[in-house]
Amino acid sequence: MRLLLSNDDGCHAPGLTALRAALAEISDDLVTVAPDRNRSGASNSLTLERPLRVNRVAEGLYSVDGTPTDCVHLATTGLFEQDADMVVSGINHGANLGDDVLYSGTVAAATEGRSLGLPAVAISLMGENPRHFDTAARVAVSVVRLLIDHPLPNDTILNVNVPDLAFEELDGFAATRLGNRHRAERLIEDSDPRGRPIFWIGRAGGEADAGPGTDFHAVAQGKVSITPIQIDLTQHNAVSSVGEWVQRL
Amino acid sequence: MRLLLSNDDGCHAPGLTALRAALAEISDDLVTVAPDRNRSGASNSLTLERPLRVNRVAEGLYSVDGTPTDCVHLATTGLFEQDADMVVSGINHGANLGDDVLYSGTVAAATEGRSLGLPAVAISLMGENPRHFDTAARVAVSVVRLLIDHPLPNDTILNVNVPDLAFEELDGFAATRLGNRHRAERLIEDSDPRGRPIFWIGRAGGEADAGPGTDFHAVAQGKVSITPIQIDLTQHNAVSSVGEWVQRL
Amino acid sequence: MRLLLSNDDGCHAPGLTALRAALAEISDDLVTVAPDRNRSGASNSLTLERPLRVNRVAEGLYSVDGTPTDCVHLATTGLFEQDADMVVSGINHGANLGDDVLYSGTVAAATEGRSLGLPAVAISLMGENPRHFDTAARVAVSVVRLLIDHPLPNDTILNVNVPDLAFEELDGFAATRLGNRHRAERLIEDSDPRGRPIFWIGRAGGEADAGPGTDFHAVAQGKVSITPIQIDLTQHNAVSSVGEWVQRL
Amino acid sequence: MRLLLSNDDGCHAPGLTALRAALAEISDDLVTVAPDRNRSGASNSLTLERPLRVNRVAEGLYSVDGTPTDCVHLATTGLFEQDADMVVSGINHGANLGDDVLYSGTVAAATEGRSLGLPAVAISLMGENPRHFDTAARVAVSVVRLLIDHPLPNDTILNVNVPDLAFEELDGFAATRLGNRHRAERLIEDSDPRGRPIFWIGRAGGEADAGPGTDFHAVAQGKVSITPIQIDLTQHNAVSSVGEWVQRL
Repeated sequence: MRLLLSNDDGCHAPGLTALRAALAEISDDLVTVAPDRNRSGASNSLTLERPLRVNRVAEGLYSVDGTPTDCVHLATTGLFEQDADMVVSGINHGANLGDDVLYSGTVAAATEGRSLGLPAVAISLMGENPRHFDTAARVAVSVVRLLIDHPLPNDTILNVNVPDLAFEELDGFAATRLGNRHRAERLIEDSDPRGRPIFWIGRAGGEADAGPGTDFHAVAQGKVSITPIQIDLTQHNAVSSVGEWVQRL
Repeated sequence: MRLLLSNDDGCHAPGLTALRAALAEISDDLVTVAPDRNRSGASNSLTLERPLRVNRVAEGLYSVDGTPTDCVHLATTGLFEQDADMVVSGINHGANLGDDVLYSGTVAAATEGRSLGLPAVAISLMGENPRHFDTAARVAVSVVRLLIDHPLPNDTILNVNVPDLAFEELDGFAATRLGNRHRAERLIEDSDPRGRPIFWIGRAGGEADAGPGTDFHAVAQGKVSITPIQIDLTQHNAVSSVGEWVQRL
Repeated sequence: MRLLLSNDDGCHAPGLTALRAALAEISDDLVTVAPDRNRSGASNSLTLERPLRVNRVAEGLYSVDGTPTDCVHLATTGLFEQDADMVVSGINHGANLGDDVLYSGTVAAATEGRSLGLPAVAISLMGENPRHFDTAARVAVSVVRLLIDHPLPNDTILNVNVPDLAFEELDGFAATRLGNRHRAERLIEDSDPRGRPIFWIGRAGGEADAGPGTDFHAVAQGKVSITPIQIDLTQHNAVSSVGEWVQRL
Repeated sequence: MRLLLSNDDGCHAPGLTALRAALAEISDDLVTVAPDRNRSGASNSLTLERPLRVNRVAEGLYSVDGTPTDCVHLATTGLFEQDADMVVSGINHGANLGDDVLYSGTVAAATEGRSLGLPAVAISLMGENPRHFDTAARVAVSVVRLLIDHPLPNDTILNVNVPDLAFEELDGFAATRLGNRHRAERLIEDSDPRGRPIFWIGRAGGEADAGPGTDFHAVAQGKVSITPIQIDLTQHNAVSSVGEWVQRL
């Protein structure tokens, strides 16, 4: 059972280090390919304009000067002789709830595993400066072990969010759907030391659709949220109405 | 009717120039905010680690040193006093079919319009070196005009792919679902002039699910493919089975 | 007489546009290779880790996704069949006086011309938001024309700084040495919108050695400053004392 | 005696690790501020367009998402309460001989120390894949120790190149001037996997001025080359002739 690990906080991030240590309990065949630096917010971006470099940082740990998607892509298209059996991404420093998923490099690393039809898990620890990586690591071990023993369909991507609590303080696990955030906050206008204008992307919006059943709701209850994610972006129930609409063109 | 335009090939790309010229027929209130350079493959990546700079290139044309998502995000969170009514992204140099959509910066610019609940359209012209931007521009005008006169639900994102043909050679329009590609081709290993190894991301896989009803099929017939896209990544039909599975944890 | 033009403010910068227009008076064989975006402060940095792309922006105008040094390097090592006879870099938006020269991409583009033994000129227009590009362009024409008619030794690099005044208000030309600035100002500590610390490089220090004979002094008098620059970094008068010192090792 | 260390190969490079370990023999007050990744060829480039982030990697070891010059600049303009007494940069993976110095990030880190009037040393180990970091580290200790006991003038920057040999195989030390390389080799034209042209900067030229007295000559003899470097780029002996030339303008 070869596990391929990645993340978006970079190959030296404490979250990834905790994940590597924990999953070593399950498998003696771990390989980690992660960005050489923080690539949060990278989404599914692929580097097509330039070649990538792969650096062996330590035994079983490789860094790439690219995105999380680049890392998993290379690792599953020929970087290694042996194929992986599952992709595990994280432990992200901060939540990936609701709309965050669209921008998340952590989730993107997991979804990239789909190109092999591999089961994939993304694990995030909530909070701006989360501390309980050991909690998230224990959750990761449980989820991955269960996924090995009781597989879900091959195209399953699990998005796991863990409250930043001691393991004993968690209130169990919940299968959820993604909630929604309000529209992002206003951009932040500032000027650099030379007086020229600069703009920061504003903070993510607050919770909008965060009722029972959503990931937001689960974690607010102290539960670990587990959301099955898909990557088919077709809005299937709109195809026929668009079909009628198209007649007018 | 304020139209917000963007793309991922950069603010000076011929595809964007053609789109701006064509949509000027429809609205006298166009504003374009596009990356300052080619950002193909950027997906929904957001720049959170550094501030962005906005440069006024010409009347109504602004460049940003960021991703397509950054461009639309800034444009809809305070860069301008007036809100936009619709987002149009493109004309992309090359197709965005099937799995491409996940990585596409062009589609990401359109989906970012959702933060305002805006209707949004992404338009791509097929081919490695496409020539018929005038065809795609006419298609864009038709689609946007129809969308103004006969609105679709607010969260609708249309992904439009146009064969690289003269307008008269097109065989109409088809509402489609996204097809699928085969797994990507193997990475390409090479060495730089100093003898050190480098890796290129391999080419996208060939068509796998490309039967009737798919975008691949439509364009192969010479039709313009129009796919309604969603951004809810929850795999809804798996939530309950994952709910049972979670009981074992 | 083929003139190779470059700059560090990017291929669309008004300063470069003014320079191209003005030098067209002197030569009908201008070729411009400039960074695709602002690369101020790039110094002599060369891009060795990745390949570069060259884009033909317009007739005789090429952009490179690299540094000013990359641009001149490519242009003089095989990008064109014909060799250039002189390198002209600018018009920089802002002064390049004293210690600035060490960091300047504009000056670096000129010094890179040395690899061919070409005469080279860097031209900068003073001020944070300089306006009199026409003045600097006229100066450029005069200097380049004189350099053609009355060549200086081949390894000569001229660093020209032009006060931001109408041409008639200039008080002539002065050959100068580089002055010195005081130590740079303190770094500027700030935090990003997510509360994490960021640091900006502080402003350049004020003038320290700015007496008669220096570039600082000349421009303060309303003169165009012309400083001959070398690229031999050996501190020749220290070699023998270091030779004695080394005996102790 | 506070020693400030940096390099251009990145904070995790073996050369820097060897230097840190060796200099700990001399001083118990070492602080290292280095780029978060390989920034070879960065020259004196300064990052002015965006803010920098500083990350504490380990006790006394900080990484910056910028250039070597950025690292030393921040470290000497307020990042720490205490000022440094000397800057040591390296151990570079590869030689910095002759014209290389102009492009070198390693040397630039040392020269940036001048803003404080600090003595500064750049140390490079020759070869494409150098092995004898212990040799270069011993050389570094000797040079730094001698510089402490027998200071050279404050503006002294020493550029040290060490042959990739066992320490016992070295044939002593030589004070040298910088030699010269031939013009760089032709650019290397290639195409990416999508068939579009790319260009690599060609290899550095061979040795041109490499006779007795030069750094090239010393290292070819198996000696450690030590070159005193200056940062005054004025070509002083040309100022008066340019003064006459300028009269014609």
